[in-house]
Amino acid sequence: MSNPPLLQQLIAALRCLPGVGAKSAQRMAYHLLERDREGGRHLAGLLTASMDRIGHCTRCRTLSETELCNLCDNPHRDPSILCIVETPADLMIIEQAIDYRGGYFVLGGRLSPLDGIGPREIGLEQLDQRFAEGVVREIILATNPTVEGEATAQYIHDMARARGIKTTRIAQGVPMGGELEYVDGATLAHAFHERSEI
Amino acid sequence: MSNPPLLQQLIAALRCLPGVGAKSAQRMAYHLLERDREGGRHLAGLLTASMDRIGHCTRCRTLSETELCNLCDNPHRDPSILCIVETPADLMIIEQAIDYRGGYFVLGGRLSPLDGIGPREIGLEQLDQRFAEGVVREIILATNPTVEGEATAQYIHDMARARGIKTTRIAQGVPMGGELEYVDGATLAHAFHERSEI
Repeated sequence: MSNPPLLQQLIAALRCLPGVGAKSAQRMAYHLLERDREGGRHLAGLLTASMDRIGHCTRCRTLSETELCNLCDNPHRDPSILCIVETPADLMIIEQAIDYRGGYFVLGGRLSPLDGIGPREIGLEQLDQRFAEGVVREIILATNPTVEGEATAQYIHDMARARGIKTTRIAQGVPMGGELEYVDGATLAHAFHERSEI
Repeated sequence: MSNPPLLQQLIAALRCLPGVGAKSAQRMAYHLLERDREGGRHLAGLLTASMDRIGHCTRCRTLSETELCNLCDNPHRDPSILCIVETPADLMIIEQAIDYRGGYFVLGGRLSPLDGIGPREIGLEQLDQRFAEGVVREIILATNPTVEGEATAQYIHDMARARGIKTTRIAQGVPMGGELEYVDGATLAHAFHERSEI
């Protein structure tokens, strides 16, 4: 036979999931086939529906199955504060961790001119239109503390300043619960420089 | 809305995979939606096809999409030796690890009278018919070295003896590359008892 058996194809396909290697994929395939075929069918249906029907919110650009996501559509969120993140996953992490009641804007990446990712690719024209509406009074820059994330934050900060909007950046320093021994030097240097009086 | 959003349903469905908790499921869903929708659709198709079309080989009872699996259908395998395992995953592990050229019989479980799993449930009537064909001359018992696995091995050994078939059991002892310090007492005691001259 020219095609590998279906079971081998299934094991190979499971490896498209992040963090799943050959052994885990094998274990998953056997588990579904021997103990949970209903679960496997249910997952297949939701995968198909999700890949087809989940798009992006036209206002904040996060993943959404409706034109406006349920955060943008929520009248109880404060539209004068806008938190700017790189990915929908970052948005969800913030929603789960803290009691933030403002809005979001999802870049879907970060500025990286060498990879051809400019302001347009990460939605900054749309963001500037949002600034122009005159409702946003503060933006919270929550891009990643990487070189590209910082450059992106700086770029957006300049955009906001031109519109007279206040910009804040999430604090950087040693992570809570971490041990100094395992913190990298750059973080430690930054934490010393930005120390605050108690 | 009464139904949770599709994204939440997808994350919940991914948790039917073994070893996948809330965090991993979330990461998988975002990864597929943002970077690999094609992979997600491909996986969905293979899941559906596999759950529907993969059944069991009528001869050795392992997972197979054809009536006879490609091991039972292979004329180059020696039909006089039969390795008896608990699950299709065990069969695959043996196939991958060693150069075994005989046949297999998959029990699909182990004797456990309290759970209502008797000889019929693990295919021992079918196995006895196979013994009765007169081709099998040796069985290799590769059930797990657990209480139920041992009881199952003993039961099958008695069946084989009644048919005049030689029985062997895979060796038990300290695992290769392991350290004695981490080996459990029962294994160590068995390894001492079964020591061989060098």
